[in-house]
Amino acid sequence: MSKLDFILEELVTANRILANEGIVDSFGHVSARHPGNPQHFLLSRARAPERIERDDIVEYTLDGTAIDERGRAPYLERFIHGAIYEMRPDVHAVVHNHSPSTIPFGVTGKTLKPLLHMCASIGHEVPVWDSHDKFGDTALLVSDMAMGRDLAHLIGPRPTTLMRGHGATVVGRSVRHAVFVSVYLELGAKLQMQAMAMGDIKFLTPGEVDKVISRTGPYTLNRAWENWCWRAGRPFQAELG
Amino acid sequence: MSKLDFILEELVTANRILANEGIVDSFGHVSARHPGNPQHFLLSRARAPERIERDDIVEYTLDGTAIDERGRAPYLERFIHGAIYEMRPDVHAVVHNHSPSTIPFGVTGKTLKPLLHMCASIGHEVPVWDSHDKFGDTALLVSDMAMGRDLAHLIGPRPTTLMRGHGATVVGRSVRHAVFVSVYLELGAKLQMQAMAMGDIKFLTPGEVDKVISRTGPYTLNRAWENWCWRAGRPFQAELG
Amino acid sequence: MSKLDFILEELVTANRILANEGIVDSFGHVSARHPGNPQHFLLSRARAPERIERDDIVEYTLDGTAIDERGRAPYLERFIHGAIYEMRPDVHAVVHNHSPSTIPFGVTGKTLKPLLHMCASIGHEVPVWDSHDKFGDTALLVSDMAMGRDLAHLIGPRPTTLMRGHGATVVGRSVRHAVFVSVYLELGAKLQMQAMAMGDIKFLTPGEVDKVISRTGPYTLNRAWENWCWRAGRPFQAELG
Amino acid sequence: MSKLDFILEELVTANRILANEGIVDSFGHVSARHPGNPQHFLLSRARAPERIERDDIVEYTLDGTAIDERGRAPYLERFIHGAIYEMRPDVHAVVHNHSPSTIPFGVTGKTLKPLLHMCASIGHEVPVWDSHDKFGDTALLVSDMAMGRDLAHLIGPRPTTLMRGHGATVVGRSVRHAVFVSVYLELGAKLQMQAMAMGDIKFLTPGEVDKVISRTGPYTLNRAWENWCWRAGRPFQAELG
Repeated sequence: MSKLDFILEELVTANRILANEGIVDSFGHVSARHPGNPQHFLLSRARAPERIERDDIVEYTLDGTAIDERGRAPYLERFIHGAIYEMRPDVHAVVHNHSPSTIPFGVTGKTLKPLLHMCASIGHEVPVWDSHDKFGDTALLVSDMAMGRDLAHLIGPRPTTLMRGHGATVVGRSVRHAVFVSVYLELGAKLQMQAMAMGDIKFLTPGEVDKVISRTGPYTLNRAWENWCWRAGRPFQAELG
Repeated sequence: MSKLDFILEELVTANRILANEGIVDSFGHVSARHPGNPQHFLLSRARAPERIERDDIVEYTLDGTAIDERGRAPYLERFIHGAIYEMRPDVHAVVHNHSPSTIPFGVTGKTLKPLLHMCASIGHEVPVWDSHDKFGDTALLVSDMAMGRDLAHLIGPRPTTLMRGHGATVVGRSVRHAVFVSVYLELGAKLQMQAMAMGDIKFLTPGEVDKVISRTGPYTLNRAWENWCWRAGRPFQAELG
Repeated sequence: MSKLDFILEELVTANRILANEGIVDSFGHVSARHPGNPQHFLLSRARAPERIERDDIVEYTLDGTAIDERGRAPYLERFIHGAIYEMRPDVHAVVHNHSPSTIPFGVTGKTLKPLLHMCASIGHEVPVWDSHDKFGDTALLVSDMAMGRDLAHLIGPRPTTLMRGHGATVVGRSVRHAVFVSVYLELGAKLQMQAMAMGDIKFLTPGEVDKVISRTGPYTLNRAWENWCWRAGRPFQAELG
Repeated sequence: MSKLDFILEELVTANRILANEGIVDSFGHVSARHPGNPQHFLLSRARAPERIERDDIVEYTLDGTAIDERGRAPYLERFIHGAIYEMRPDVHAVVHNHSPSTIPFGVTGKTLKPLLHMCASIGHEVPVWDSHDKFGDTALLVSDMAMGRDLAHLIGPRPTTLMRGHGATVVGRSVRHAVFVSVYLELGAKLQMQAMAMGDIKFLTPGEVDKVISRTGPYTLNRAWENWCWRAGRPFQAELG
């Protein structure tokens, strides 16, 4: 199997998993950097993640221009993906979602931070990007490269950001990594809402967050990925050597 | 396929989707204005939405009289639909439900407003109709045209209203539109309850709400509709040209 | 079909529905007064409601003695059922459950009352029976007729009661009625918890509760029952004439 | 069927049940003491509980050394199990999980106690083990026998403990018992969070907790186990005589 074939299958699986695990509903998307051309990325045409097939996936340049569109209408917000790949050479996958438990954090100014070891991968704390700050009244969608770059700048070296009134964006070193962080961002947000109602929270210490991040590798990611594939009715493919 | 055939299939699908997505339980209903006669509307006989078949759908005049009832007992609350079609020529579909997260707003006087871009279609803020104000102690059901018109008057030009101790009513320019707004009314209510417990909320600005509404068209509605059809086990029919 | 055959099938269905709708987990039970002998009642052997088959149902005298046990171990708490049938000739079905949202009301002294028209059937307000008041430290189970009668006395003419640290008991004029009230008791409790966190609640007025109760008949009960049967994989049998 | 065969099947079933009932996600594990050698225990290789097959189960010495590993990578945290079996001869099964509702208690210092009779088996109150107290900044994982023994010491004679920022550990006299306590630990935590938001809680009295524990035997455990097996698609095997 070629690297491109592998990534295309991986993206279909990622879409199905994100839908099946409740991280996306009919909206949201996941992309991968093109394995043969780091200046391109792969992203489905505009379609609900739960429905995506391999032939829905389109190749784009980093500025969001389709290479061979063949009538496949793009997601308006493909600029989120392109701008992040442009700024972050370490990033090989991007998830954008409206993960439900993250929304209340984006609109209340309460800071989302890891309180569970499984959630350390969200980073020391999750910033909030507010499109209104620079772009005023919009439909809140990241609809051009200027907005995409502003979002990417706010993310900086971090793995995640919230978007006020909109959702979240997660980056990873692989598709599996970005999906993993997305799932545990949702869980961490849900648990933090519950814990905030109970009293003061002892979050993970900065040192604990670093320790967990440093050991979140294939041993951890693939245990979840195998299970999520099965739950979503998709084959679990071995990683390429 | 005739316009009538299209709408009848669309209504069956809408009922199944609303049940499958948790917007209705065994109660609640969705109607469409008759495509060939704007003084009539189409609504199922009294049956749980998840069970409805095409032959359950009855044609009614706007005052709730069945054209050809054939023993199919009507929903008592068909007057909600008729009164709205009478007052709002722009409306082509109506959903009435007991969507769970909206109920606490109807009984506490807290105003439901959009805090997420997906929820802007509920309108700038959602009013609450209290049957007790004019009709005193009743079973809270909209059981005649006087109650239906009072409700329709409260809705005015808006897309949604809550009903104290009872549920919500949503109107749309199409069946797909009314179902879409109903799903995101429930989500918005759930998220606002969570956010209210955390602190002050930065809702969408009025300008943001208008911008989102202005771009909520087939590109958005059909992405969700295709997915919801599949999830509910119903075919996704192309819109008529 | 005989009245007894009808009720036996109805009880199997009721068990499956209560499990499928999340009102019971592996515990809880539902009984019916014997249609041919008002001094007897019908209740499954000790088994999880989701697993119950027709042959699991045993006939008991009101003091909880099995007529023909054939090795079928009884629920310890059959006395709940017998004591209620003894005191309330109007009651023809009893549900006992650990319905999750009702538990917090039983242990905090907050009064559960109907705030949604669908929940009016729980009665004007739901009392709490505390086994500790008369029986001190026990395993909280209603393990003899003395406890059963004390519970039945607390219920009095009402349709429902909570049991501190334990669950709820619901009575009805038919199996369908008791199941209906049980489902909406759970929903009402969940919604009241949410509303209490938001502010003061405008509950249904006493007059509204009475109006809703007076019109909750077969038109309403069977709409839900047909749907719940289908969801639980059970046939929907017509009521006997 | 040999005792070993019985326990191997029981462990597969326990893994599937814990996943199916929402007590574990892709992480968490359950072990049993070896029925023929109390100095050994049985635990799956590192794999998501929902995926585990009989051949995934490996035999370990109490210090976590595999007897016949055959390439089956172990869970890093097998030391939780070994250290508890070493200290507690009465324990024959151990569950470690990240049960979602327990996490907020572990990070807020609020004490989890039984408020429902079904939850009495969690013990009079659930302590919290904080790995940071003795081991400082770690990945929070119990990665050697020193950490395992420290955790086991904190548990002492109790049935359960929380682990700050990590999860919970439950012990039992059998696999069925440990799974039962795990399920009702999650439920109890969820209900206590809800009740805490409503007001002061009347927990079970110490005498009530003792009474419930003393009568939680096969009559209770097997009613749930039969049901959970069926729900998880696993056969319900009779206990060995």
